[in-house]
Amino acid sequence: MSLPGSWIFPVRSVKRNSPRLRRSVISRSGVGFPNHFSMKPAFSMTPTMAPEIAAIRWFNSEPLTLSALRGRVVLLHAFQMLCPGCVSHGTPQAKKAHEIFGSQLAVIGLHTVFEHHAAMTPVSLEAFIHEYRLTFPVAVDAPGDGTPIPQTMQAYGMRGTPTHILIDRAGTIRHHGFGAEEDMALGARIAALLAE
Amino acid sequence: MSLPGSWIFPVRSVKRNSPRLRRSVISRSGVGFPNHFSMKPAFSMTPTMAPEIAAIRWFNSEPLTLSALRGRVVLLHAFQMLCPGCVSHGTPQAKKAHEIFGSQLAVIGLHTVFEHHAAMTPVSLEAFIHEYRLTFPVAVDAPGDGTPIPQTMQAYGMRGTPTHILIDRAGTIRHHGFGAEEDMALGARIAALLAE
Amino acid sequence: MSLPGSWIFPVRSVKRNSPRLRRSVISRSGVGFPNHFSMKPAFSMTPTMAPEIAAIRWFNSEPLTLSALRGRVVLLHAFQMLCPGCVSHGTPQAKKAHEIFGSQLAVIGLHTVFEHHAAMTPVSLEAFIHEYRLTFPVAVDAPGDGTPIPQTMQAYGMRGTPTHILIDRAGTIRHHGFGAEEDMALGARIAALLAE
Amino acid sequence: MSLPGSWIFPVRSVKRNSPRLRRSVISRSGVGFPNHFSMKPAFSMTPTMAPEIAAIRWFNSEPLTLSALRGRVVLLHAFQMLCPGCVSHGTPQAKKAHEIFGSQLAVIGLHTVFEHHAAMTPVSLEAFIHEYRLTFPVAVDAPGDGTPIPQTMQAYGMRGTPTHILIDRAGTIRHHGFGAEEDMALGARIAALLAE
Repeated sequence: MSLPGSWIFPVRSVKRNSPRLRRSVISRSGVGFPNHFSMKPAFSMTPTMAPEIAAIRWFNSEPLTLSALRGRVVLLHAFQMLCPGCVSHGTPQAKKAHEIFGSQLAVIGLHTVFEHHAAMTPVSLEAFIHEYRLTFPVAVDAPGDGTPIPQTMQAYGMRGTPTHILIDRAGTIRHHGFGAEEDMALGARIAALLAE
Repeated sequence: MSLPGSWIFPVRSVKRNSPRLRRSVISRSGVGFPNHFSMKPAFSMTPTMAPEIAAIRWFNSEPLTLSALRGRVVLLHAFQMLCPGCVSHGTPQAKKAHEIFGSQLAVIGLHTVFEHHAAMTPVSLEAFIHEYRLTFPVAVDAPGDGTPIPQTMQAYGMRGTPTHILIDRAGTIRHHGFGAEEDMALGARIAALLAE
Repeated sequence: MSLPGSWIFPVRSVKRNSPRLRRSVISRSGVGFPNHFSMKPAFSMTPTMAPEIAAIRWFNSEPLTLSALRGRVVLLHAFQMLCPGCVSHGTPQAKKAHEIFGSQLAVIGLHTVFEHHAAMTPVSLEAFIHEYRLTFPVAVDAPGDGTPIPQTMQAYGMRGTPTHILIDRAGTIRHHGFGAEEDMALGARIAALLAE
Repeated sequence: MSLPGSWIFPVRSVKRNSPRLRRSVISRSGVGFPNHFSMKPAFSMTPTMAPEIAAIRWFNSEPLTLSALRGRVVLLHAFQMLCPGCVSHGTPQAKKAHEIFGSQLAVIGLHTVFEHHAAMTPVSLEAFIHEYRLTFPVAVDAPGDGTPIPQTMQAYGMRGTPTHILIDRAGTIRHHGFGAEEDMALGARIAALLAE
């Protein structure tokens, strides 16, 4: 038994966000509060179209675009292979969503390296994908220009890893979660978008 | 770390069903396969209205009827306080659903004692509810007539504990699960019914 | 995944000790600090002989006495069947010690009911022992006289449940732990006493 | 909750040992059976001196030799940073031993890369050590000559990762475990050697 008395979910945050270790799930679209699910938006907001993915390489798939996935619900799972919270929670959760929802949901991994760049190369990522038996498409986020933060991560305003983003059939961002989220709440969010 | 090499989910089955230890989630209504979620019924079937609850006592609530809950989605969680699979998985899952879905979902516990009757009296159940901090309504299933299986359990044809049953706004049984089910799949099933 | 952000180990404390929920492992004998193991006593102390067990009933065994176990190392596991921290942690840990150390270690359960007395009768305990497949001897602590705290629990000065007590071959108390303790530390404490 | 129905502990085995996925803890010295602890050797054997570590680099420490550690008990934890069973079980267990036993025990990590060599370079390992907050010394095993299996791994006859080896104060191998082992049993093995 582990004794999580002073438990902090081990996300990795980009430097501009301190403190480094945070635990939160934010919903920018009003689909619900952290770990609380609601069918009704918590507040109205201007819908934001999901920015296109800028990738330098894809694993498990030909290159994909979100525009070509219009009509489908998308779970975008941003991670780093050396982020402990991704390996223990975020990536297994994305894998579980891929298994449970099957072809109804497009699960896309996004390797958003914003630190230890030399340690998390595509060569290392390929071995990681093999060892952890990931079968959904995984994109390598394109390096930033003059910043350690890669392009897609910037476009979405992600705060760190793991981040999961839900995109509806119309291509709109409906949920932007950073850190840990209950499986039950995520399953509900996905099903609510599938039902639209 | 526990080493679950020969893992069997510790449900309690009624005697007519052997082997005693089973692990399965069945969906009689076509909402999906075990731990796989689908928005479309897997097969067509005649809708079955949820039988009324026959209770001799209620905790955490005035007596409830399913007919009075018409218009709401109901999660009926059948358990026994001395069933290990209920205590470790089923009941915490029902509690989590109660927290995550809040007032959108009517979670009802049903204490379906079909063995060790003298050990699981309402007096013991009351202490169990207190210690495990259950706040949703819990009904004590009415004893069977000439059978150890209580009345509501019989009416639903439950195979053992834990069993969870999802009832839609129209009062129809939409999912009948026995044993363990992934939180993510259950969350999706609930949200799908909420969206109808 | 459970999110134990505000995790408190759910022990049950006797009323004289507030706050009700506590998490600690104390070592009164100097075998080590909480979750830290040392072969050397942390401080010198007068050795305390383990008081005899006052039981009104035994399960899985004929009546036992500690004096008859002299020469063996004893793990005394005090629990209540409706104490969540016992069911999820303490009792499985005692069970594991029974499996790992086999006949080298005498594991004795002690049902120390100090609250909800009507809910945790020997009849209920018998079903609990059956359902949780406990095979080590379990004693029912004798009721206190004019106090809800039973006799053996009083004699040892236990603060609540779960409590685990290690007694060496000479019958001396060497460790008195209340609440959660790492399996690795407990395994080390037992082996250290076996090596004496 | 994860449902480990078809659970196999995800070790990584070297190619000569098939099947690739195995779950076992072997004790070549008789300290005990898998997950069973005994103070007495299960069978007599010729004591084997622990071969020296052949490392090309050390993290968290100046270069160490086992001969210089004579007089101390050593836990040698062989792992690969992309071996899922290491990341989820073996390495956290070594970390826990380092915390619980403190200066009494010399915990040494050994990065034994025998596959995906280009993916698990010292540069990547350094980031791994940082992210997983490992503070014990970690050696990078020297590459094999004409074989993917590195030198120390060969010298010990390790079958894969994670492997943990216990060396007594005299420099003799006393336990050789491959795969998963209960924390309680490992804690007992360490304490037994500390008591000698």
